[in-house]
Amino acid sequence: MRVEVLAVGTELLLGQIANTNAAWLGQEMAAIGVDSHFHQVVGDNHARIVRALRTALARSDGVIVCGGLGPTQDDITREAIAEVMGVELVRDEALVEKIGSFFAARGRTMAANNARQADVPRGASIISQVRGTAPGLICPVGNKVVFAVPGVPYEMSEMFERAIAPQLMERLADEGMTATITSKVLRTWGTSESGLAEALDGRFAALAEGRLPVTIAFLASGIEGIKVRITAKGNDAAHAAELLAHEEVEVRKVLSERFGDIVFGVDGETMEVAIAKLLRARSLTLGVAESVTGGIIASRLVDVVGASTWFNGGIVSYASAVKFNVLGVPQGPVVSAAAAIAMAEGAARVLNSDCAVSVTGVAGPEPQDGEEVGTVFVGIVVPGKAPYAERLQLPGDRARIRQYSAISALDLLRRAFD
Amino acid sequence: MRVEVLAVGTELLLGQIANTNAAWLGQEMAAIGVDSHFHQVVGDNHARIVRALRTALARSDGVIVCGGLGPTQDDITREAIAEVMGVELVRDEALVEKIGSFFAARGRTMAANNARQADVPRGASIISQVRGTAPGLICPVGNKVVFAVPGVPYEMSEMFERAIAPQLMERLADEGMTATITSKVLRTWGTSESGLAEALDGRFAALAEGRLPVTIAFLASGIEGIKVRITAKGNDAAHAAELLAHEEVEVRKVLSERFGDIVFGVDGETMEVAIAKLLRARSLTLGVAESVTGGIIASRLVDVVGASTWFNGGIVSYASAVKFNVLGVPQGPVVSAAAAIAMAEGAARVLNSDCAVSVTGVAGPEPQDGEEVGTVFVGIVVPGKAPYAERLQLPGDRARIRQYSAISALDLLRRAFD
Repeated sequence: MRVEVLAVGTELLLGQIANTNAAWLGQEMAAIGVDSHFHQVVGDNHARIVRALRTALARSDGVIVCGGLGPTQDDITREAIAEVMGVELVRDEALVEKIGSFFAARGRTMAANNARQADVPRGASIISQVRGTAPGLICPVGNKVVFAVPGVPYEMSEMFERAIAPQLMERLADEGMTATITSKVLRTWGTSESGLAEALDGRFAALAEGRLPVTIAFLASGIEGIKVRITAKGNDAAHAAELLAHEEVEVRKVLSERFGDIVFGVDGETMEVAIAKLLRARSLTLGVAESVTGGIIASRLVDVVGASTWFNGGIVSYASAVKFNVLGVPQGPVVSAAAAIAMAEGAARVLNSDCAVSVTGVAGPEPQDGEEVGTVFVGIVVPGKAPYAERLQLPGDRARIRQYSAISALDLLRRAFD
Repeated sequence: MRVEVLAVGTELLLGQIANTNAAWLGQEMAAIGVDSHFHQVVGDNHARIVRALRTALARSDGVIVCGGLGPTQDDITREAIAEVMGVELVRDEALVEKIGSFFAARGRTMAANNARQADVPRGASIISQVRGTAPGLICPVGNKVVFAVPGVPYEMSEMFERAIAPQLMERLADEGMTATITSKVLRTWGTSESGLAEALDGRFAALAEGRLPVTIAFLASGIEGIKVRITAKGNDAAHAAELLAHEEVEVRKVLSERFGDIVFGVDGETMEVAIAKLLRARSLTLGVAESVTGGIIASRLVDVVGASTWFNGGIVSYASAVKFNVLGVPQGPVVSAAAAIAMAEGAARVLNSDCAVSVTGVAGPEPQDGEEVGTVFVGIVVPGKAPYAERLQLPGDRARIRQYSAISALDLLRRAFD
């Protein structure tokens, strides 16, 4: 089954935003075994959207259209789909009411043109809106199908997962493509993609030799490290799970022998979730002191639901005076191992925490305290060890250095419990 | 003149990388007045690349193909173009030698398959390689043209600027289409896309009536608000700038009459840049106290280069004890206007700052202190006003509420200087 992604929006053609929706949908479809041979982008122009839809339907079994479902004059995906279906748009009064109540709940009045979002091509069904005002659409065109979803990534992804992926899987099953694909992501921090690939050379050879329906892929995820995705295709769910579990053991063995403890989580587990697990298991609390990261670490930790049971808070000591006066760092260079340790000790004390992590460094554009851009010190306080600091040298521009500093600091804290 | 971008690479379809080349080329082409009505992505498959090329040539005057010019077996863009041209590939021995010397200069031997990069469709001309081993191609197809460039952004952009952009501009001049397109983005926070559209209805009508080559578009940018993009097409740069400037005045007038001070910046200016400008102009310093946002505000402020001149730091008072003990918030409910004000006052005092902004609220998943999920209080301290708090009701899940809280708080701080 081949499904094409068609992103609608002049802003994409003008390069004002990158087409991340297509990339995301590509990943998700591959994961469930749907082929995607083409992607297209088209501007907010009726004739061209119609043309792009017809092109897509001529070469694929289905199309996912993203964008152009908003309330304004240039949101014309509904009209274009109706033309391709050869039907008219019908206003769904129940939908109008639902959109109205969305506004009412926020104490606002619905602008009249929002009612356009309730226009549905005759014969199409609706994907109800959970995160925004625009419903999605499922539009049969002969034996093919056009799915329409909003261009807002957060609304698009929710609709794909809830309504489109299940339909695609059902269609795959109808086609006798009942192979089940399952995959697991091992999340790593601390080595390169080529290093991982080299280490796993033996596994690639073994899988090829055994003609096993298992693949290993790498996904460099920038500040989130490198993901190692193992995918297994089985005759049914149990078979796929068995193949996957076996390969996971092998891959983990290789990685641990070669690199030590670089797998910090699986699938959706972020570094901060790994920290949360460690602290909760030990009933410990954490405080942070951040200079160069300026709150990124604290903010990541608060992302974890229930963080209040183990995360006390943080001090963003951006000005040196805050390091001296609030954290009690001794006067002297603030980009140093000594300052990092004093910051962590200060955070533990001021925030009344069992553990602390601190970061001080140079994000640029200028060097500081005689240290080059990219030099970062991480201070660690954990029970049963003397406070210590690690020095890092990180690549990239200001934003990259700050993000790399944050995840590196969390990884060092994670490893402090080894 | 219409030129389509065709990106070649299965990794793009699988979403392993985002198609940033198309975005970049879209920007560059718009800047010189070339229209791009469609973009496509296709995998490393001969028949499909041929098909995508034919589709593109049927609806555009030219195509820029990115990728598939490398040395490996799956680099087959050259073969596909030759088929579309109806010609054979000819190996250019001078090119083989040049590629060989590229390797020799790095003390390496050229692998045999690198010679494939010297294969050129008969009748095509070459864009010499400056940054990599693969040359680009300029391939006439009837009265249309296919440009082929490597997929590596660094090589692609160099070839576009040096060899493709000048050709496109020459073709535009031949067509008497020496139009220049220019655009400006007004960034807004605090109203809906449909509200903006309705307010600007009169401008849409005026532009249509006057047949002016000016367009207004909206770009909902989630936690960054809604962007209003004005684009003008002039006979030359000065004419385009004049049209744009005139429309900007009109749009700003409408927005300001209808919504007040909702434009916080233009083009790449973020909310934190707006704050930085206000504080620098007044020589004021800022401290923040964050609960529900957990460091997002501080982290955004540190994003601004040179933040150290006006940003002192922040207290992430996630645990109530930190609010009481570090910030001096009186015992009592911590999700309240009183707590928000006390947090801001505490931040100004502890961080020795002229101004302060604080956020306390409920991001969920559970209500707190009798307040529903999404209830947020922002406290503000600025010179010359009594400290005050605003209550907000924000939509979305935990992550959204936290992000909306951060930008809403910064916007309230911005407006505190009105």
